[in-house]
Formats: sequence, C-alpha cells, structure tokens
Amino acid sequence: MARIVRLYRTGGPEELTLEEAAPEQPGAGEVRIRVEAIGLNNSEVQFRHGVYPLPTGSLPSRIGRECSGVVEAVGDGVQQFAIGEEVSTIPAFDIQRNGVYGEWCVVPETALERMPARLSRLEAAAVWQQYLTAYGPLVLFSRLTPHSVVLILAGASSVGLGAIQVAKLFGATVIATTRTAAKQDILHRTGADHVIISDGTDVAPRVREITGARGFDVALDPIAGPGLAELADAAGQEAAIFVYGQLSPEPTPLPLIPLLRKGLTIRGYTLWEITLQPERREAARRFILRHLESRALSPVIDRVYTLDEIVEAHRYLESGRQAGKVVVRV
Amino acid sequence: MARIVRLYRTGGPEELTLEEAAPEQPGAGEVRIRVEAIGLNNSEVQFRHGVYPLPTGSLPSRIGRECSGVVEAVGDGVQQFAIGEEVSTIPAFDIQRNGVYGEWCVVPETALERMPARLSRLEAAAVWQQYLTAYGPLVLFSRLTPHSVVLILAGASSVGLGAIQVAKLFGATVIATTRTAAKQDILHRTGADHVIISDGTDVAPRVREITGARGFDVALDPIAGPGLAELADAAGQEAAIFVYGQLSPEPTPLPLIPLLRKGLTIRGYTLWEITLQPERREAARRFILRHLESRALSPVIDRVYTLDEIVEAHRYLESGRQAGKVVVRV
Repeated sequence: MARIVRLYRTGGPEELTLEEAAPEQPGAGEVRIRVEAIGLNNSEVQFRHGVYPLPTGSLPSRIGRECSGVVEAVGDGVQQFAIGEEVSTIPAFDIQRNGVYGEWCVVPETALERMPARLSRLEAAAVWQQYLTAYGPLVLFSRLTPHSVVLILAGASSVGLGAIQVAKLFGATVIATTRTAAKQDILHRTGADHVIISDGTDVAPRVREITGARGFDVALDPIAGPGLAELADAAGQEAAIFVYGQLSPEPTPLPLIPLLRKGLTIRGYTLWEITLQPERREAARRFILRHLESRALSPVIDRVYTLDEIVEAHRYLESGRQAGKVVVRV
Repeated sequence: MARIVRLYRTGGPEELTLEEAAPEQPGAGEVRIRVEAIGLNNSEVQFRHGVYPLPTGSLPSRIGRECSGVVEAVGDGVQQFAIGEEVSTIPAFDIQRNGVYGEWCVVPETALERMPARLSRLEAAAVWQQYLTAYGPLVLFSRLTPHSVVLILAGASSVGLGAIQVAKLFGATVIATTRTAAKQDILHRTGADHVIISDGTDVAPRVREITGARGFDVALDPIAGPGLAELADAAGQEAAIFVYGQLSPEPTPLPLIPLLRKGLTIRGYTLWEITLQPERREAARRFILRHLESRALSPVIDRVYTLDEIVEAHRYLESGRQAGKVVVRV
C-alpha cells in the first residue's frame, strides 16, 4: 500500500484526502511512477474549488499534474521509458484519472520527460507548468526582440517568475507586478527590469512612466476581471494581452474603446494548446530543455512541504504569499 | 462658391448642414478634388452622433472619408497627381479637416488612388473603406485557406459584402448573418455559402449545424455587446474574432471561459492600422486593385442619393435597411 491524495468533493484545502491505495498496474502505453516530488499549481486550487475553466469529470478523482520520480512499472507497448528511469511529468493528461498527488501515479508514456542532470528532484517537479505556460504567449505566439516590453502580472507566481526568465532570453524589457513590496527583490533577482507594486490599480500610469508613453507589447494576465481595463490602458499599439487564468471572481468587461483605438489582441491561453499538439510540444520541449541546460531557465522554489502536509501546502498556495513554486517532497 | 456639408454639433441626420463655401486652396502636399460621388459609412453616423470610438476634434467640422472625383488644384510639392486626373480617396486623413462630403474637398496627396477604368464614378467612391476593413482581418492577420470557415456579422453591410468577396478569394466557406430574410439573396449572390437570419441569438447552434461542431476560424464583428458571447460559443479552436465597430449600445462582457477553453483571440481592428502604415497600405492597395481589375472584387451599391438629400441618405444609412453601399452622386 501507498498513500495518494483523492478529492471526494470540491471545496477548501481540507478536501484533499490522503489515503492508502494499492499502486495500480499501468495500462497500455502507461507507466507508473514512484513519485519523489510534486509541483503544486494554482490550477489545482481552482480544480479543488470546482471553478477550473476547462471541462472536468466526476468526483472522487485524483488531482495534480506535475511530479518527478522514478519509473517503477510499464504497461504494454511502452517503448521510450524503462523501469528505474528518472522522469518528470508534462501536463498532457487527464489530471483526474492520472493525477500525480501521492506516492505513486500512473500516467501516459507520452507525458514523460527525462530531465537535465543538473536539476534536483524538487526542481524537476517545478518545470513544465510554468515554462510551458510562458512559452505559448512569449515564444510561439509572439516575436519578442530586445525592443519588446513585456508586462507580467502576478510576477512572483511560479508562472510569473518563469515568464520573466523566458522574456529575458529575448532581451525584452520586463515589467512585473506584485501586490507586496516583500516580493520586489525576488522579481529583480529573477530578471524583472521594473517592478510595479500594485493591487491592480495604477498599473497604466506606471507602465507609461517606464515606457515613455509607448505602453507594453505583450502582457501575461492570470487574473482577468475589471483589471483588464487597466491593462488595455497600459497597452501599446497592436499589443497582445494573453489571459491564462481567471483569478478574479468578478466578470471581465471587454475594454472595447482601447481595443479598437490600439488594435489590441486579447487572447485566451492554456498550456493544453502546446501539450496536446505534438509538433508544438516537441518545439517547446526542446526550447525549455536547452535553456534549462544553459541555466538561463531555472525554477524558483519558494517552499517545500511533505505529503502529510498537503492540506497545509494548498492553504499556503491559496494565501498567495509564495514567490515561486510550492513543492511537496514525497 | 460651392456646397459642402458641415457638422456644427453632434446629433441626428439633420445636423448635417449643407452650406456654401468657397473652395480652399490646397496646402503643401494637398490636392483639391471636385467631388463626383461620395461613399457613406457607418463610422460617419457614429461620428455624427459623437460616439466614434477614435479620438475626434472640435466642431464645427467637415465629415466624410470616401469620394471619387477630379483633381482641380494641387498644392506645393504635389508630385504624383496632376489637375484633371480622376482619383478616389483612401481613408488616411483627418476626416474633420479634410472631410469629403461636398462639391469639393482638400485631402493629402497620399490619400489618393487612381482607380481601374472599369469602375464607374459611383463605384470608385465605394471601394476603400469596405475592402481595407476586410483586408486586415482576412488577409493581413489571417491565413485563410479553402478549409477556413469565416463568419461575417452584418453580412449585408458594405463592409460585410466586401468581406464576403475577400474571403471567397481564398476559397473559404463563408457564413453571413443578417437580420432580415430580404437580404438573403444578395448575400448568396455576393458569395456567402450560408446565411443565418438572426437578431444575434441562435448564431452558435446554426454555425455548429453548418460546420459540424467545428465552429468558425475567423469572425468579423462590427457590433460587439452581449452578442460576443454567442460568437465565442460558435468559435472553433484557436479562432479569431475581429471586432471592428461597436454598433451595440450595451457593454461587452468578455467571454472568458470559452476564451480559455478554445484559446480564442479577440482583436480590435480599424483600417487605420493599414492606411497609416505605408508598407501595409501599399500591399493592401495592390491586393485590392488587382482583384478589382479581375472583377473578383466588385462594390455592391444599394442606393444613390444626391447631395441635396444628404440628410435623407444618412437617415436611410442609419435605418439599416440597405444591402451594400449608400452613395451620394454630386
């Protein structure tokens, strides 16, 4: 027997139920992983609350999409991975059926990656969600140059810090927002050229101050809600705003006038656009692995919990106090 | 003396004041045109009402952006055009200072085009607004193929009919919407493969019916407002909705869930993105002229008024009863 996390109903962190469950045999094309570290994501908080914007199935279910560990069983037809290999999971599977929170998980072979040796197990569980989320808006769907100005909202989230690193690969000027002065240092150390300490108001005047009235070219926004108007106000001509989450509980009015005046793009985005398309995924994978090797990309880990502390870990994640990735050591 | 239209205050069609005004001498780089036909645009209705979404200056002012006519005076430094030449105006100037409603107008030389001989003077005043508006979303910012599905809202407007023609150049499947069955014929004759008669509701189920659940790839929407949610519902994976106007008097909620689920793009667009950028404008100009020559593009004129009837012409324009361009013969 071994312990896994199950969600029996949606709700607060305490709904994450740690229980004993015999490791399952992997089916055809699947492998079972002995999990060593789990990367926690805000999308799992949303899923737990029952407000994840993508379709979800019925409960009870497993939960979690990012882990590192060792292959301990392989199903029929598995070609690329063997028992004993160290791997990480790329979010490219059903997190309810194949969720990774626990001492074991069963995932499709296609969701596995071999990680650069320089990464610790904890770091290896903190790579794919953040860099794949940044990859779409900043690499696949934009043409960043050293002249680009990139605005990253919630800059101290794991995706935010990952996106800062990705934007700096192109030499772009990076402006990051955060709610608290306490996170200013980590943002600068991770590469942000400018930090705006803001609850969402006053972003536009600060961006204009920094860019000399020009505005940003690309923004990453996990929040949406009424703050989108402030973003549109801060946007430059033909800028693009990538909305990759909906942390705001309020509706989001479309800022139509600046949209028309400036020819703005508002683009919804989730990493599934990358992970479920083999060509895109392969290009993204190579890009991220190359820059992990060169250390230009390097996951920032904020705090490490144990599996026993999964409820507390989620509570912390939900508090928004972290700067970087919250990881569970199994 | 000659007659021009001036707007002294914003309001209804009757605010368009026809008055005598001595023809002005063109300044440096400008030409004066003896106007022969004027193409009317919805954006002029919005401007007249004071709700045009782009910044406008003070009143009184002139109005109008599309005309055909003959060069009758040239200012200093004008190189490309000579007195006596037949020209049309491209919307690339200040419509308040250089407005074309009247027997004469003064516009920058850079706003002039020589038109294919096959076009009548009336047609020559009905080209640039519609095809340039369609060009951005359908040519510059999209990659249409015969597999593409294009949804054109308000399909029987002049821009709508122009956009149908442009989309058909690429062999795309075109779905057009219109409020009244009376316009169904002209939509089909102009090239629409499918017509949805709708007040904005029920567009999504009809699009799904037509496309077999796949949804559209590109939509052109001059309306915005609450109907945007219906559009997002009808959209295919990674589809783009180009909003080029705001005919709806209601606010526009951003349809965030389908935006995220499908990776949708909502893009504000006005033709100024083309006309004020020389390279884009040159490419657009060549594209449109080539297809006017081949008759693949051919302006649809709905009704012709005289200059005396400018108030009535605007009233008709505002009624939404037209299918195609409303033109004033001067």
